[in-house]
Amino acid sequence: MAATPAPGAATALAARLDGLRLETDVDVLAALSHDDAEWAEVGVPLAAFRPHSTAEVSRVVAACAELGIPVVTRGAGTGLSGGANATDGCLVLDLSRMNRILEIDTDNLTATVQPGVVNDDLKAAVAREGLWYPPDPASAPWSTIGGNVATNAGGLCCLKYGVTRDYVLGLEAVVGGPAGEYGTTVRLGRRTTKGVSGYDLLGLFVGSEGTFGVITEITLKLRPARRSAPITVVGEFDDLIAAGRAVAAVTRLGLEPAALELLDRACLQAVEDWKHLGIGKSAAAMLLAQIDTPGVVGDEQAAAMAEAFRGAGAVWAERSTDDTEAEALFSARRLAYPALERLGPVLTEDVCVPRSQVPVVLAAIEEIAARHQVRIATIAHAGDGNLHPLILSPADDAAAREAAQAAFEEMLTAAIAAGGTVTGEHGVGLLKRRGMRAELPAPVQAMQLAVKRTLDPLDLFNPGKVVGDPGE
Amino acid sequence: MAATPAPGAATALAARLDGLRLETDVDVLAALSHDDAEWAEVGVPLAAFRPHSTAEVSRVVAACAELGIPVVTRGAGTGLSGGANATDGCLVLDLSRMNRILEIDTDNLTATVQPGVVNDDLKAAVAREGLWYPPDPASAPWSTIGGNVATNAGGLCCLKYGVTRDYVLGLEAVVGGPAGEYGTTVRLGRRTTKGVSGYDLLGLFVGSEGTFGVITEITLKLRPARRSAPITVVGEFDDLIAAGRAVAAVTRLGLEPAALELLDRACLQAVEDWKHLGIGKSAAAMLLAQIDTPGVVGDEQAAAMAEAFRGAGAVWAERSTDDTEAEALFSARRLAYPALERLGPVLTEDVCVPRSQVPVVLAAIEEIAARHQVRIATIAHAGDGNLHPLILSPADDAAAREAAQAAFEEMLTAAIAAGGTVTGEHGVGLLKRRGMRAELPAPVQAMQLAVKRTLDPLDLFNPGKVVGDPGE
Repeated sequence: MAATPAPGAATALAARLDGLRLETDVDVLAALSHDDAEWAEVGVPLAAFRPHSTAEVSRVVAACAELGIPVVTRGAGTGLSGGANATDGCLVLDLSRMNRILEIDTDNLTATVQPGVVNDDLKAAVAREGLWYPPDPASAPWSTIGGNVATNAGGLCCLKYGVTRDYVLGLEAVVGGPAGEYGTTVRLGRRTTKGVSGYDLLGLFVGSEGTFGVITEITLKLRPARRSAPITVVGEFDDLIAAGRAVAAVTRLGLEPAALELLDRACLQAVEDWKHLGIGKSAAAMLLAQIDTPGVVGDEQAAAMAEAFRGAGAVWAERSTDDTEAEALFSARRLAYPALERLGPVLTEDVCVPRSQVPVVLAAIEEIAARHQVRIATIAHAGDGNLHPLILSPADDAAAREAAQAAFEEMLTAAIAAGGTVTGEHGVGLLKRRGMRAELPAPVQAMQLAVKRTLDPLDLFNPGKVVGDPGE
Repeated sequence: MAATPAPGAATALAARLDGLRLETDVDVLAALSHDDAEWAEVGVPLAAFRPHSTAEVSRVVAACAELGIPVVTRGAGTGLSGGANATDGCLVLDLSRMNRILEIDTDNLTATVQPGVVNDDLKAAVAREGLWYPPDPASAPWSTIGGNVATNAGGLCCLKYGVTRDYVLGLEAVVGGPAGEYGTTVRLGRRTTKGVSGYDLLGLFVGSEGTFGVITEITLKLRPARRSAPITVVGEFDDLIAAGRAVAAVTRLGLEPAALELLDRACLQAVEDWKHLGIGKSAAAMLLAQIDTPGVVGDEQAAAMAEAFRGAGAVWAERSTDDTEAEALFSARRLAYPALERLGPVLTEDVCVPRSQVPVVLAAIEEIAARHQVRIATIAHAGDGNLHPLILSPADDAAAREAAQAAFEEMLTAAIAAGGTVTGEHGVGLLKRRGMRAELPAPVQAMQLAVKRTLDPLDLFNPGKVVGDPGE
């Protein structure tokens, strides 16, 4: 069903888009052809285009539909599942230049932005108005709101404050299919905090990885800025499983940290070697919690958190009394992935399990690593049950790569067996298509595919991703 | 496209469902044929059935599909848009006997329930475990979780804690169409707090008013119980618009009340006349705020709230120092609708607008009431911008009814003009179909209809609702 470009499509496209500059430089195209996923297939695009407006997106989508040229939309390319990778003969639509903040509505606590706005830039702009946009994927300094919406990005503070979906009130998208000719612009959702007028197509688009259309504008809910610096509680553990037990205990106690992150020794060490933050790297695992409940209750929760860590077997656990140290610890968490990526190919896992299953799955990961003789460094949004075991491989070693890929698939199986999902926040893209098929029963897959075929009958938008056939 | 029962369908259905008791008593059927919406069309069902299990639902849906008998699912019938009203020749599926709480998972803060569990019963059960299920529609003592999910019910505390959708992690539903034969059981969503494995079909089902299938089991997210009684702040205003200005001010200040409710004089009076709670009924409008931020910060917010009320023109505004009084005030809020319903037909409006537009829309409502010479009593989840102007009519007065219906449609127009939606939390059902068509552009309506046709190609499930043709 996928759209296939006719011979001479590039020339025809250029002719139809007279006045718009198509990018065809081979090096530029190569750079725009993939996200940050390791070993995901990358096709060769026909061209790339960097629109400045919805009207340009609309025009390009209409032309591509006519010529059978698939449209692969991308933001900053920080994705980790291959969702933004080019397919052969596609047009890459790079939205990074649609990066204006259109409105910050301080009366209604909303912001309306173009998709190419960088997450941290939005955070900074709304902070100047005393407001806060909570979703904070580790990629926030680089990743765009459009990409965050396309993957329903999570982050550290979604434990308490929710994921991207929880902040998207409305969006504008260029679509085709039942809405009309390809290139039709629609607005989904609304500007109000509540609303049930019709089916939640907005929610369907969030996390759809560009497979239903091109998101060209987004209205986001904001929160008032937090009033005081959160309290940090740190615990060190001499085995990973004990840290997992501490996470389960924190959930059971109903403590509500804003973040509860886990780093193992390999992660701590990689960051320290790179950034020299002065972080102890002796422990097998570290838990970092952030508590932002104000006043005495926050103090009580911090004490209970440290106590829960100790009860689960922490070597030590304390409330941090040093803001600089606390900041360095969270910086380390955010830098863990790039720090490890410096050392060679990193295959990133993103399983999410019920919180009580975190110790079980951490044990399964250790077993899988040992059996396949692969190095796995684990970081985790542990409080959400969202684990990122990172499989480290030497470059250019086919056997190591195969072992890594086998370990990757086995961790998915372990997560499913523990009642979890193959992807908590990175999306299906290319790398999790097989895992998604193992997770979702066939009737649900059929529903997924039927919805895709309904909303994009030409399979024009990011074909092959999410519900695409993973092959063998 | 709607399913049409063949002649003799009732007999054929009974034969196929040998061993299951179909309800055919005329009075019972009449009682099960409608929800609480005034003047919405009600059809005559073929029969009703009260399943005890998913297997029974599956068997009944399969038989209905074969015989072309539409399936209209209902919970407690507290809906206010006609979403649960019978259509001619349908089978009414009354889920009130599927009312077991299947699991409260204190390790993972989730509950799994059958759809017929009453909201307040669930609240009580999880409270015994130190947990809290926040969504609190005013119907909570009677309405079921299944109905709450089907309409994506809101309530008072969704201002701070979100609507039903924000608590639904997973569900089981009996469906047809792409998933397989009608009667196929699927599980959507998951048991983890995060997950992006495939499109958000779960979110699509929430708020779909039984038009995609029959929800037979629901897994809900819970929160830890609140530790202390919230603070109540009360303000009295001598005009409604000033109360609206206070609401806008509270939003702008970034205060985060757990609830911010508005009642006008007619509401206060009706409750007082009925329940004798001893509530002052002299004011034109009362604002009731609940603040549950713990400690000193909560105290500060309460003081700022009262100050904001006064700044907007409150006659007086104070933090309540009397828990009994505070409880009585919130009881009055919850009882406002039934108190007014005692007096005659009530046509319930449910518009939702950006918070800054609350004063504008309150003024429009006063103007519409005056022009049509109808009595309108207004209650509102004002902090959400979700207004419930209640149009009161004398019984059996055709002219009054027409005036009420004209006022109803004009308030929808006013809400749309203010950037709002025709339904914040009650759903489209029958009564808001025309309004929804005015609100949503044609391409979006076409997408809505295409999704319905894809997931329910026989139009078996609750035909005519939501995307159904409202006629002229």
